[in-house]
Amino acid sequence: VILASAVDGLPEVRAGDDLAALIVQALAPERLQDDDVLVLAHKVVSKSEGAVRALGAVVPDARATELAELLGKDARHVQVVLDESRAVRRAERGVLICVTHHGFVCANAGVDASNAGEPDTLTLLPRDPDGSARALRARLRELTGAAPAILVTDSFGRAWRTGQCDIAIGCAGLIALEDWRGRSDTRGRELKATVIATADELAAAADLARSKDAGQPAVLVRGAGRFVTAEDGPGVQPLLRAETEDLFR
Amino acid sequence: VILASAVDGLPEVRAGDDLAALIVQALAPERLQDDDVLVLAHKVVSKSEGAVRALGAVVPDARATELAELLGKDARHVQVVLDESRAVRRAERGVLICVTHHGFVCANAGVDASNAGEPDTLTLLPRDPDGSARALRARLRELTGAAPAILVTDSFGRAWRTGQCDIAIGCAGLIALEDWRGRSDTRGRELKATVIATADELAAAADLARSKDAGQPAVLVRGAGRFVTAEDGPGVQPLLRAETEDLFR
Repeated sequence: VILASAVDGLPEVRAGDDLAALIVQALAPERLQDDDVLVLAHKVVSKSEGAVRALGAVVPDARATELAELLGKDARHVQVVLDESRAVRRAERGVLICVTHHGFVCANAGVDASNAGEPDTLTLLPRDPDGSARALRARLRELTGAAPAILVTDSFGRAWRTGQCDIAIGCAGLIALEDWRGRSDTRGRELKATVIATADELAAAADLARSKDAGQPAVLVRGAGRFVTAEDGPGVQPLLRAETEDLFR
Repeated sequence: VILASAVDGLPEVRAGDDLAALIVQALAPERLQDDDVLVLAHKVVSKSEGAVRALGAVVPDARATELAELLGKDARHVQVVLDESRAVRRAERGVLICVTHHGFVCANAGVDASNAGEPDTLTLLPRDPDGSARALRARLRELTGAAPAILVTDSFGRAWRTGQCDIAIGCAGLIALEDWRGRSDTRGRELKATVIATADELAAAADLARSKDAGQPAVLVRGAGRFVTAEDGPGVQPLLRAETEDLFR
């Protein structure tokens, strides 16, 4: 049984806030357990780390200005998106599809104006979301003695399908990919190609437990302890598909 | 709070079986509710509908034979995949990436040997998964008085990311896409591009509740009643992205 519940009562988070302590406080009297998965919408992590940009301080270059005209966007906003990108794959219909410095492919490099907390401030993706997850896990262990898995998420669009799903952009202590290859199905037949993106499925499950307009960036998932490891592990790197091996585009 | 639990004790399902009755029986004494979402791995639906092919009766044509040689696969298996496909996008590394007649893009058109129940039998996707979902819902209403939403799923690979996630291939009584555009975030700022693929997130959440080797094709999801509708609705069609509008490939 998988149980996902949003954490109520988390205050508006600001740069330098001790996010782990705020979560522990919001959860009380409920206590974190070692086999929990704590799922955090990246924005709350970015805000606590100061991964934001004030539009007023951004001076767009020629490329940003040109793209902004093409897309009908604010050139300073486009400049921030470009700063967060390793490559731009598309610039159409008011959106830039970017490869971020982390290697994620998403709209506008994950740079977002909504929920930023301050007007004219953009929230970026955390610089190192796996590192953010590891740091939060260490701090939670320090505060509570328990070390739940940490999963940092964002909502990404997908190829072939409409709508967005929450997916994993960082994690610690979590089996991000569960490999069933070589194991057998119920009839004893070998499962040939079954590798499950458990971290992405957990991100999706957590997203259902909260409302986009209710300010619930943290979701506690119980019953997924088989995906939690004592070691922090490799984070989300195993979830990034090498371009040369991608048959799905 | 979202709660997903696998339905235990479902027997091996065969063509012509009353799947709805088997589920009601397996759930007892637990009763289905109108705000439940019942998630079914497509194989159990396909099997109950006889959507299987015996390899012995398949005669591969020239194209299937050629592709099979290229991929190192059984030509009869390839023929079945081609029969299920509207188009083949890739044929590499032992896999055909196909567009099914329904419009889904997936490996081997969803044709699968594992868990088929009989040796040398392939399980296909249901011919009309939305129709399957509607029929199951009607039959459950008949049997129990309750009409939970029905979601039929399969595990698909994705562009850009490794591993598979369960996604929606058919549904009835479910809001497949939740559109937040025009609504406001916690700061009163308009959410610009937030359309959430709730059906896919529910499919992913349900997949976490079962084990691939435990024969648990049915998962009951509670707490997602806000996505359940009295009308059967348009099924998964809204989840299929028009090729001309797809910036994510």
